[in-house]
Amino acid sequence: MAQQKKMVEAITSRDEDFAKWYTDIVKKAELADYSGVKGCMVIRPYGYAIWENMQKDMDARFKKTGHENVYMPMFIPESLLQKEKDHVEGFAPECAWVTVGGSEKLAERLCVRPTSETLFCEHFAKVINSYRDLPKLYNQWCSVVRWEKTTRPFLRTSEFLWQEGHTMHETAEEAREETQRMLKVYTDFYKETLAIPAVVGRKTEKEKFAGAEETYTIEPMMHNGVALQGGTSHYFGDGFAKNFNITFTGRDNTLHYPFQTSWGTSTRMIGAIIMVHGDDEGLVLPPKIAPIQVAIIPIVQKKEGVLEKANELKNRLLEKDYRVKLDDSDKAPGWKFSQYEMLGVPVRLEIGPKDIENNQCVLVRRDNREKIVVSLDNIESAIEETLQKVHDGMYESALENLKSKTYEARTHEEFLDIAKNKPGFIKAMWCGDSDCEDKLKDETGGVKSRCIPFVEDHLSDVCVCCGKPAKHMVYWGRQY
Amino acid sequence: MAQQKKMVEAITSRDEDFAKWYTDIVKKAELADYSGVKGCMVIRPYGYAIWENMQKDMDARFKKTGHENVYMPMFIPESLLQKEKDHVEGFAPECAWVTVGGSEKLAERLCVRPTSETLFCEHFAKVINSYRDLPKLYNQWCSVVRWEKTTRPFLRTSEFLWQEGHTMHETAEEAREETQRMLKVYTDFYKETLAIPAVVGRKTEKEKFAGAEETYTIEPMMHNGVALQGGTSHYFGDGFAKNFNITFTGRDNTLHYPFQTSWGTSTRMIGAIIMVHGDDEGLVLPPKIAPIQVAIIPIVQKKEGVLEKANELKNRLLEKDYRVKLDDSDKAPGWKFSQYEMLGVPVRLEIGPKDIENNQCVLVRRDNREKIVVSLDNIESAIEETLQKVHDGMYESALENLKSKTYEARTHEEFLDIAKNKPGFIKAMWCGDSDCEDKLKDETGGVKSRCIPFVEDHLSDVCVCCGKPAKHMVYWGRQY
Repeated sequence: MAQQKKMVEAITSRDEDFAKWYTDIVKKAELADYSGVKGCMVIRPYGYAIWENMQKDMDARFKKTGHENVYMPMFIPESLLQKEKDHVEGFAPECAWVTVGGSEKLAERLCVRPTSETLFCEHFAKVINSYRDLPKLYNQWCSVVRWEKTTRPFLRTSEFLWQEGHTMHETAEEAREETQRMLKVYTDFYKETLAIPAVVGRKTEKEKFAGAEETYTIEPMMHNGVALQGGTSHYFGDGFAKNFNITFTGRDNTLHYPFQTSWGTSTRMIGAIIMVHGDDEGLVLPPKIAPIQVAIIPIVQKKEGVLEKANELKNRLLEKDYRVKLDDSDKAPGWKFSQYEMLGVPVRLEIGPKDIENNQCVLVRRDNREKIVVSLDNIESAIEETLQKVHDGMYESALENLKSKTYEARTHEEFLDIAKNKPGFIKAMWCGDSDCEDKLKDETGGVKSRCIPFVEDHLSDVCVCCGKPAKHMVYWGRQY
Repeated sequence: MAQQKKMVEAITSRDEDFAKWYTDIVKKAELADYSGVKGCMVIRPYGYAIWENMQKDMDARFKKTGHENVYMPMFIPESLLQKEKDHVEGFAPECAWVTVGGSEKLAERLCVRPTSETLFCEHFAKVINSYRDLPKLYNQWCSVVRWEKTTRPFLRTSEFLWQEGHTMHETAEEAREETQRMLKVYTDFYKETLAIPAVVGRKTEKEKFAGAEETYTIEPMMHNGVALQGGTSHYFGDGFAKNFNITFTGRDNTLHYPFQTSWGTSTRMIGAIIMVHGDDEGLVLPPKIAPIQVAIIPIVQKKEGVLEKANELKNRLLEKDYRVKLDDSDKAPGWKFSQYEMLGVPVRLEIGPKDIENNQCVLVRRDNREKIVVSLDNIESAIEETLQKVHDGMYESALENLKSKTYEARTHEEFLDIAKNKPGFIKAMWCGDSDCEDKLKDETGGVKSRCIPFVEDHLSDVCVCCGKPAKHMVYWGRQY
């Protein structure tokens, strides 16, 4: 029991120090470690297994919507990056530059890709000739580099893993549809796979992606009321196409520029999972992406027949493709309970001599700690049902947090008061002027526009900042 | 028929110009394209789909043997790379160096990883404390960079995709077992998945990996008799462990250095598939990794009922998880035949009005063009059987090529004669001195030792080069 206590004590309380609680979980659940390279992290086996499960799920969604994976070079020649003015302005300040190859100084610097619009465009120019070549629906899984001054594992690192979709379409309408389609794929993934609800909508001019005409975003709220930009989907119009001279012969037999989108999500999502679902006992993982879905803990395991029965249980669940771990190490059951709670394993099964006598086991949910006794006869269906309940319970609880920490501000004073005293999202009217965004950010020490939702409430007629006529209702909040 | 002819004409004959034939296939089958970045390629959807299928198969083999995936940073600080003398000497000349991050010159240069032994060692030093922490069985899927002067798609590029396994063990014996285990995993993968036979064995001192004690290799022979180093598995002893101060408390309660291995394969394997199996009609893909396993070509598709029946056929095969493509485009059947031959699709099904009348379809194997008529009643089992036959046929044919182009040389003259006139592998005795390797390479314009096989024939008592007593029988050959 000493070790069990040690583990529990080792975690900072979530309400006491959210930032420290976060890094404690990253470390204790062995998700990631710091490396000797400034701003870069090591993703450890347990963290990487979560990412693999997320990848697999998302990749299937991308393929189902007709996308193909490709791989572009990791380097971008400086001249290529400069082809789109806004884009280079947005990214050049955070580029890592390769200046020496082998023992020779390079004639032209190469940027380690921060994102790959320029590389995709260079390739599109070669492979798109006719409307018959459209749409091109490409996606890439890779790592990207954005030089960061202050970093935190998963949330902000100089290198991170992500997927970036890049598509080209015959018409603006089709490209806009794609932008929305992929935003929906992300929203569905967050809800159905990560059990995370979110606010979705359009970014303001000030907050949109460098070079995009429109940027759409999914913004889940962390437990502490802070937003995390969880994924973005951009509509580019034909801006890049013109700069990269990408043309196709249309159905009318004349040359046209195609219309472009891109969309991306990254390992930041692991940070979101920690901060949306985690508690004082550690990680709480959505069943769909948990590397271990069921942990089986034998009780009085030295007693004859216990390990045998526990193994039988394990094999029955493996047979149904559940991800199961039987811990028959010589550690005490109490220590094991704490350990698998720290790892966020959705369901724990305890099985001891008395359970075996009664043809049952004890099932404990990680999310709400509900403990029930289930018959071994139909353990498979009990697990299926429970995993679904855990998922639903996690989603409901996160939705409750999102709702309870979303406020409405009708006046400037009200806005500042909420920003100061109530961590969360603020719904407030806005005139459309970026000066007001700057002012509110300065006054509140960091509250920014999150997005303009697709369905806007009409809270008042005037901008919460300047009092001029309002154009939109905006979600505001602090962000990671 | 004009288009069909055009396609066929567009490929250089394999026997006429092997190098041009190779690049023609890469281009025509849309596997890869050149990029604007020196020495880097774009892996196109069809090429990437092959890589994904290979990854999936290998990853399952790695996990089955107890390995876990992780992700290390892509940058290596110069001082970290320098910790192992032989290693840095081997790799520094081909490193790409990042010297500027954001707008600042870096205090220390960062190398874009050419391989990650040093990063893994830095991490191992932190996470290995006790014998209970061993073994650590890690693998990583990523891209690496080795600055190359002359490049060819898949075979030699400045950036390529690969997997690198890195493991740490309590004893030298366990590490040596791991080295052999993973060599076997590679050999099995080549045989069972890629239908490629190979010579396997140990590299000579001269040819081993920078920093390794022993390097094992799998060396398939391309159709033209040239070898391609297809995968390597290294035993490091405790050399890196000592340089990186990685220690663990052993069962005897004293400090020990752990023993290390690494092993890797890359997108070069796609090059091997092209050059082992391809023919004058294009790519020939092993069924296990073919993105499309069965191409269905409707004949007289405008006739009522044909497309309906073709679709029914497609759905039946999809139901059985075959990767199927029904081409109902308005191109002529002859054009389609050529196209799917170019893409190396293992099986083609032709179905037209007469076939439907007779409840049959025509099945054509890509590897040997065998054409048979099969009943629609049991098309699923016919496909299963045929795909296996295609795999076996491809393996046998590659084995026949390997055998027929492997020669024995007993004298220096004989060696030079074979090297000059008969492209392939040469089995010959060797004294163990690297001077003889250098001499033979110079005399032949590039024939190098491939490996010392596990079972050596005794061809004579003396070295084929210097006449001194022979220590080993070595496979020699030119290489990509």
